Amino acid sequence: MKDLPLSKAYQFIEPGPVIFLVTSDEGKPNLMSMSAHIVIQDDERPLIGCAIGPWDYSFGTLQKTKECVLAVPTAELATKVVEIGNCSGADTDKFKVFGLTPKPAKNVKVPLVAECLVNLECRLYDQIGQYNLVILEVVRGWIDLKHKDQRMLHHNGNGTFRVDGEELDLRDKMVKWPSYVQR
Amino acid sequence: MKDLPLSKAYQFIEPGPVIFLVTSDEGKPNLMSMSAHIVIQDDERPLIGCAIGPWDYSFGTLQKTKECVLAVPTAELATKVVEIGNCSGADTDKFKVFGLTPKPAKNVKVPLVAECLVNLECRLYDQIGQYNLVILEVVRGWIDLKHKDQRMLHHNGNGTFRVDGEELDLRDKMVKWPSYVQR
Repeated sequence: MKDLPLSKAYQFIEPGPVIFLVTSDEGKPNLMSMSAHIVIQDDERPLIGCAIGPWDYSFGTLQKTKECVLAVPTAELATKVVEIGNCSGADTDKFKVFGLTPKPAKNVKVPLVAECLVNLECRLYDQIGQYNLVILEVVRGWIDLKHKDQRMLHHNGNGTFRVDGEELDLRDKMVKWPSYVQR
Repeated sequence: MKDLPLSKAYQFIEPGPVIFLVTSDEGKPNLMSMSAHIVIQDDERPLIGCAIGPWDYSFGTLQKTKECVLAVPTAELATKVVEIGNCSGADTDKFKVFGLTPKPAKNVKVPLVAECLVNLECRLYDQIGQYNLVILEVVRGWIDLKHKDQRMLHHNGNGTFRVDGEELDLRDKMVKWPSYVQR
C-alpha cells in the first residue's frame, strides 16, 4: 500500500461508497458495513461524520478505544459487504469467516483491511449523540494501487447497489478554484 | 412527477449522488451543487444532514426562509452541475442562465427542478454550527419516472465524476432484515 495524502482522502468518501468501519477490541478486530457518512472537512486535516449508534456492536468498541479504520472496498467485495452487514461481531469473527486479511496500521491499533482499495486510519474526534453521529479525524491514509478494478459500490437501499460506471472529467469547468485542480 | 414515499427518500441520497440544494429568496429561486450530505434517519420522517456554511450564498437564504429543496440530477446534467457549482447566486440567475425549469412545490415555497429525477421538499430542522452542518427534514418527495436514463453522478473531487454503472441485486443476502426488503 502507498501513502494517500490526507488532502485526497475526501475523494474516496464524498462519492458515497459503501465502506467498512473497522474496530479492534483488545486485539480482536471486527468490521461493519456502512453507507451513511459525510465529508465535513476536506483539507489537510480531514473530518468525516458517520452515522453509528448503540445498536451497532462496533459502537461500543469505538467508544472504548476511540479509534477505527474506514476501509473502501471495490465492487469485487460486494457480496461480502452485504454478508458483513447482516451479522454481528458479537458472535462472529468476521475477518475469519469472510476471509479478509487484517494488516497492521501505523497510527492506530486497529488493522487495515488488506483487500480494500483505500484505508483511512481515524481517531474519534467528537460525537453528536442526538443524531447518532460520530466525527472522525483521519490521521493517515493508504491506497493500494495494485487494484486493477477500482470501481466503488453505492447502496441504493435494501441490498441493491450501483457500481461506479463511466468516468467524467469536467476539470476544465472548475473555473472558481482553478488552482485547486491538480492534474 | 409522482409521489415518492418518504420512507424511500434515503435510497436516492445514501448512494452519495451530487445534488442541488434549491432555495428561494422572496420568489427569486437559486441553487447550488453539493456532494457532502448524510442520511441521518431513513424512516417515514427522513432527516438529511448537509455541509453548507456562511461562505455559500444559499446559506443566508436557508437561514432566512428555513426551507429548501434537494434535487437529484441525472448524468445528462453533469456539465450544468459543475457550472452551477462554479458561479454564485449573488450575481447570477442560475435557473435562467442554465436553462432549468422551476416548478411549484406543495409544502414549501421553494421550486422543484423539473429536469431532476428526484425532488425532496425540506424544512430546516436543526443546525450544528461547529461543523457547518444543517439538518433537513424531508416533508415531501417526488420522482419523475419519465427519465429513461436514471444514472446518478458521484463527485470524486476537482470536477471528476463517476456515473452510476452496473446494478447489483443482493437482496437475498439481507437476512437480518428480510421483512424490510420490498420487492
